[in-house]
Amino acid sequence: MKQKKENFSEWYTEICSETGANLADVRYGVQGAIVEMPWAVRIMRKFEEMLEKEVEADDHEPFLFPTLVPEANINKEKEHVKGFSPELFWVTEAGGSKLAEKYYLRPTGESQIYPMFGLWIRSHKDLPYKRYQSRMTVFRFEPTTRPYLRGREFNFFECHDVFKDHKSALKQVERDMVYSKKVMYDQLGIPFLFLQRPQWDKFAGAENTFGAESFTPDGRVNTIASTHDLGQKFAKTYGIKFRDEMEKEEFGWQTCYGPGLVRIMAGLIAVHGDDRGLVLPFSVAPVQIIIVPITFEKGKKKVFAECQKIEAELKEAGYRVKFDETDNSPGWKFNQWEMLGVPIRLEIGPKEVDEKKVTVARRDTREKEMISVNDLKKKIEFLSVDILKTLKKKADAYFDNHIFEARTLAEVRDILMKNPGIIKAPWCSINIDGENCSDILRKETVGGKVRGVLFNKQEKVSGKCIICGKKANHLVYIAKSH
Amino acid sequence: MKQKKENFSEWYTEICSETGANLADVRYGVQGAIVEMPWAVRIMRKFEEMLEKEVEADDHEPFLFPTLVPEANINKEKEHVKGFSPELFWVTEAGGSKLAEKYYLRPTGESQIYPMFGLWIRSHKDLPYKRYQSRMTVFRFEPTTRPYLRGREFNFFECHDVFKDHKSALKQVERDMVYSKKVMYDQLGIPFLFLQRPQWDKFAGAENTFGAESFTPDGRVNTIASTHDLGQKFAKTYGIKFRDEMEKEEFGWQTCYGPGLVRIMAGLIAVHGDDRGLVLPFSVAPVQIIIVPITFEKGKKKVFAECQKIEAELKEAGYRVKFDETDNSPGWKFNQWEMLGVPIRLEIGPKEVDEKKVTVARRDTREKEMISVNDLKKKIEFLSVDILKTLKKKADAYFDNHIFEARTLAEVRDILMKNPGIIKAPWCSINIDGENCSDILRKETVGGKVRGVLFNKQEKVSGKCIICGKKANHLVYIAKSH
Repeated sequence: MKQKKENFSEWYTEICSETGANLADVRYGVQGAIVEMPWAVRIMRKFEEMLEKEVEADDHEPFLFPTLVPEANINKEKEHVKGFSPELFWVTEAGGSKLAEKYYLRPTGESQIYPMFGLWIRSHKDLPYKRYQSRMTVFRFEPTTRPYLRGREFNFFECHDVFKDHKSALKQVERDMVYSKKVMYDQLGIPFLFLQRPQWDKFAGAENTFGAESFTPDGRVNTIASTHDLGQKFAKTYGIKFRDEMEKEEFGWQTCYGPGLVRIMAGLIAVHGDDRGLVLPFSVAPVQIIIVPITFEKGKKKVFAECQKIEAELKEAGYRVKFDETDNSPGWKFNQWEMLGVPIRLEIGPKEVDEKKVTVARRDTREKEMISVNDLKKKIEFLSVDILKTLKKKADAYFDNHIFEARTLAEVRDILMKNPGIIKAPWCSINIDGENCSDILRKETVGGKVRGVLFNKQEKVSGKCIICGKKANHLVYIAKSH
Repeated sequence: MKQKKENFSEWYTEICSETGANLADVRYGVQGAIVEMPWAVRIMRKFEEMLEKEVEADDHEPFLFPTLVPEANINKEKEHVKGFSPELFWVTEAGGSKLAEKYYLRPTGESQIYPMFGLWIRSHKDLPYKRYQSRMTVFRFEPTTRPYLRGREFNFFECHDVFKDHKSALKQVERDMVYSKKVMYDQLGIPFLFLQRPQWDKFAGAENTFGAESFTPDGRVNTIASTHDLGQKFAKTYGIKFRDEMEKEEFGWQTCYGPGLVRIMAGLIAVHGDDRGLVLPFSVAPVQIIIVPITFEKGKKKVFAECQKIEAELKEAGYRVKFDETDNSPGWKFNQWEMLGVPIRLEIGPKEVDEKKVTVARRDTREKEMISVNDLKKKIEFLSVDILKTLKKKADAYFDNHIFEARTLAEVRDILMKNPGIIKAPWCSINIDGENCSDILRKETVGGKVRGVLFNKQEKVSGKCIICGKKANHLVYIAKSH
């Protein structure tokens, strides 16, 4: 297959396709709408469930809204409309005739959910009001598309919360970051920076936007989650009011959080994958342990019996294990299961059976060793933790090695050209008055964008803005993005 | 609240609404598209997961198709088009302009999935090819709508299988029935008949259709699953071919199975619910055990401590348990949790604490007894099984009591008027030549329909068709339906 280092883009396309790990079929006939294949569905369900667990543990209740939204909903929030209108899909006909009121397909939940919040929330006793929806898709008419990176229909997950004051809402932003850290980094090993976006690059209608910025080897950032401090703007538009302790009517303070399910999938592929295919953390692998028999004419029965015995034992112990008893050659099987990223492979041949041993191969390092069958469970227990640790270490090193510092526009340009990554540079302002510098940066670097400043951490900065030369007030992170 | 027996329809509407168990909010603004509220989402996820487990255990792999389908797909299968065209929603605009090719929103998966099967299936080695999709919605422009009974957008679950011959396909129809039995009857306690539909009432494009017919107290059948023997018709339309052992190219034989997620929800509400609200089987209850403290000024602390201790113990034991420590009165709490159908309520007051006892109330029978705390776990273990058993017994009796026999049209009419239910009657033919009699039946009974004959079981029949008077060849089941 294609080399990841040489040509990330082609490598990525291949690994998604049927000649790779067969994750997404793009031949379906609607641009930007993929068929998610079984292996991908199983992986995505796993981390979707991790996220569900995380937000539910923090008191979010699930609801599920329809895909269709009445036209009237979008016209209420002017800024939000401006942001999403060009991307909307419109349902104009049904039942054989034109609809009296058109529907759009939700591009994200705000405009469908908040009018209902207006009906549901009455009192300060209802707050904090925390809800989420998952196991659904959203629709955006994007000009260019790519599996899991940019789609016209894609899997979505969103939390929508209402608080009694701004302080509580801002605390939720921090909690959202913790969900992302606990799932995407702690369990999946995808490193990211949590950045506060500049004012000119916010979610349509938000006061402030925060993004979890991961990184792909083509030198672009991959936003795997975002959180928005919505202030009271939507609450005022959609009438989300509560009576406080003094029976005074107040507007709610809102946040919304969206871990990017498809972007996490892209991150898993891009961050851990190698030239032999996917490399999956133990926690999300649909098959965690694959057993490959090494058989000859003689002794096949004995080997199969041993494989079945071990399969049963590991299944009993709660692992997702599979015994590959197809007619394919061991070499073909090795390649196939390596392509799919299965973390542990057990090889069992006559030698192993005779010596009461088993050969254990790990996907991440491709190390192989023969151990006693008696030590197998302990070994797997160790590997289930160690594989993630090793993946993290490698991913962290790669991520850290691709964060550069620059003091001038020329340096930024130079790094983006030769050694693409994320660049820290001094900047005048992340308020709207810094937008002009940002426009210049984008033109001069063909797409380099100010992604923001570190959240909740004032980094020391000296010198001058790399564009306008005025006093620098921020150390911003600059990168190209997906 | 409304009385179930007196007016099922109003009772059903109320139990779904915010003054009832708050399952579905119909105020969203799109007719037939409900907001599924947290309690309903949690219940539905539970049986969705049961179904996933069941079909996966029988080798179905999950995939997920987009919601949008290109217009070209629907024009291929003439019969299927005729069936679904009037119900389609059409996306005609996106990104600010008219689309060159329109998309429709899937009404069911066949027309989107089968062209891809044509690409994926190559050889007899690929067969049987068994896939399913769940955690998605479908869209049908229905004239009238009702939460969980008839919607314009609703949750869907579908299996699509391809076999090498008709015999294997027909075996799958039997397996589909087993999935339904194992989930909907064994675990949820919803009784049903598995019927083969007459030829004039098949799924558009199918050779034969089979339905799992449950029953609601307004005397209508509620189809909670259907299975279709598709023969080779779709395979020929969409080019689903395989090379057999002799390298000869053959068309696949197909089946599809759809447990009706929303109809199962309707069944759970309608079959088990009573005048105090929902009654949930233990397996799907989002909260299985609710702990209500009975407190007075004095001793409140002691009671709360005991409640928390028991909550922790039961959580540890794997139960979904909740301690209601809100300020509401015990009576209010009893009503609230009964409305939500929580199977077991524990009441703990100073008396219980002093005597090391706990009062256990079961939702299904509303029986209450005080037992020793030491016996609590054993009691709950017993109830988790016994509640389902009791619900089933009651539901079975009700179902059986509403299956009548008739020998004449007058009798059918009489039963449908006075004592609505399912009626067994002699019938001329379930082939297309029986359709004329069916039209007459429908007019004469204002909506009574031949739902079919028992699947895989030839019932003895004598006498004459209740309509045309010709020799009866079948004992058919007649009912009004949702």
